[in-house]
Amino acid sequence: MDAPIPKDQQFAARIQASFAKQSLMKTIGARLTKVLPGAVEIALAASPALSQQHGFMHAGALTAIADTAAGYAALSLMPSGAGALTTEFKINLLAPAVGDRIIARARVIKTGRTLTVAQTEVFAERDGQEKLVALLTETVMAITGRRDVSD
Amino acid sequence: MDAPIPKDQQFAARIQASFAKQSLMKTIGARLTKVLPGAVEIALAASPALSQQHGFMHAGALTAIADTAAGYAALSLMPSGAGALTTEFKINLLAPAVGDRIIARARVIKTGRTLTVAQTEVFAERDGQEKLVALLTETVMAITGRRDVSD
Amino acid sequence: MDAPIPKDQQFAARIQASFAKQSLMKTIGARLTKVLPGAVEIALAASPALSQQHGFMHAGALTAIADTAAGYAALSLMPSGAGALTTEFKINLLAPAVGDRIIARARVIKTGRTLTVAQTEVFAERDGQEKLVALLTETVMAITGRRDVSD
Amino acid sequence: MDAPIPKDQQFAARIQASFAKQSLMKTIGARLTKVLPGAVEIALAASPALSQQHGFMHAGALTAIADTAAGYAALSLMPSGAGALTTEFKINLLAPAVGDRIIARARVIKTGRTLTVAQTEVFAERDGQEKLVALLTETVMAITGRRDVSD
Repeated sequence: MDAPIPKDQQFAARIQASFAKQSLMKTIGARLTKVLPGAVEIALAASPALSQQHGFMHAGALTAIADTAAGYAALSLMPSGAGALTTEFKINLLAPAVGDRIIARARVIKTGRTLTVAQTEVFAERDGQEKLVALLTETVMAITGRRDVSD
Repeated sequence: MDAPIPKDQQFAARIQASFAKQSLMKTIGARLTKVLPGAVEIALAASPALSQQHGFMHAGALTAIADTAAGYAALSLMPSGAGALTTEFKINLLAPAVGDRIIARARVIKTGRTLTVAQTEVFAERDGQEKLVALLTETVMAITGRRDVSD
Repeated sequence: MDAPIPKDQQFAARIQASFAKQSLMKTIGARLTKVLPGAVEIALAASPALSQQHGFMHAGALTAIADTAAGYAALSLMPSGAGALTTEFKINLLAPAVGDRIIARARVIKTGRTLTVAQTEVFAERDGQEKLVALLTETVMAITGRRDVSD
Repeated sequence: MDAPIPKDQQFAARIQASFAKQSLMKTIGARLTKVLPGAVEIALAASPALSQQHGFMHAGALTAIADTAAGYAALSLMPSGAGALTTEFKINLLAPAVGDRIIARARVIKTGRTLTVAQTEVFAERDGQEKLVALLTETVMAITGRRDVSD
């Protein structure tokens, strides 16, 4: 899927506003670092507050940004007023997430009227070098006609 | 798998100590509420700090406790000194997570020397009623001989 | 989900007719052995024609019946005229599939207007004993208003 | 993962010999069309014998070749004498598989001593045009020291 064309020209502003409402992203310290048609990036600074028992970044924190990035990559190609709900995802954890920063890069694989499939690569950045640490594949459902689910 | 027999009689104390080291669980307010051989329960009080853009509990928060519960259910049947690392999981989000409390109940489906498969049902509790909101299936790898990964 | 109520009273006949159109099921020798509301069973006699390189039953054969059983479990609860399309599934292969017969038992976990989630347990039967060899979780989409996809 | 280096220089001959033992591949008419270090391609001619109820190629047939390609992509990077066993996979079905030929292209994402993760893109070819119809992600386990599982 190269250069997909957004249905809503305001997609970037819409995603930024929506991201700002995601309290969990604020709680863990995630930032929305890139919004393109069909492609979204979220970064998370490593923090002792996000670790699992071995001191690595917890899979739950990785997954939270990987899922969010995939959801917004999907939303970026949906029409104005549609809401994006994740229906399922699968993540393979490829290496312990150790580093200064975690970066989740999502891109849309396939759009449909109802379902969009997106994939997120998650990298751990350490001393300026990136390493692939996880791969997520996700289905996102477009919800229309519901005022409470419109982003 | 009914009534599996733990290899490490101290499995419950070991899991409690390990859970206490998981900073992310503290950050989101999760509590370890049950530890049995091959079965672990974690509960999470609903909080505005854990929401996604529509006000539902973020899938990342659900997933964090569902993954952790599955990992410890697997660890409960591993020998003393083994560490548990999640290698992959898949989650189906069945309904928006709305309620007072989220409860993740994991149980081991299959043990192996290297890989254990566990499944977690995630419920949203509202006014004392539970509703199934997510289903996770996960592979956990036993790591042996590494001092830094021993729980 | 206990005792779900079918929307189409002819669901069993409809599924039997649909199964008869699945050439792949005939090619591998699978039989539809049970059809209940929200629960379907398919059996496959072991055959050298279905093996992988080590002589076990090929994951592709297991998956074919596990996916088909989940799809029909979902279809059994859909309204008349709706078609069932699998959108994704995940399978954990728990043990080599060795035996006389493979049995896939699917049940619906969650129904929705558009998406249904079902789970299939796959057993290998050997000398009358069953062993769980695989676990599949699947999303099935209801397609309406398309004459070519109506079962 | 660019240009991975095989541990067994005979990997291609080994995979061809192993593929020839996979009866299911013969039963459905699949052919091994490319074997490179960390990348394997399998093709399947469309056939009425492989259809599901709507006349599309059955997901089970697609999955059989997608899984096999991923398994051999993993095996291509394993040491001589190691056997490859799929432990889990997830597939997203992106579009109905309609066409003259189905092509599964797998590549290794991450190698490890015990576990390898590979991904397969499945295309339907119609009038010389390819369309992405499915995406599979899989974990393959290296089995060593077992004479019956050595490829």
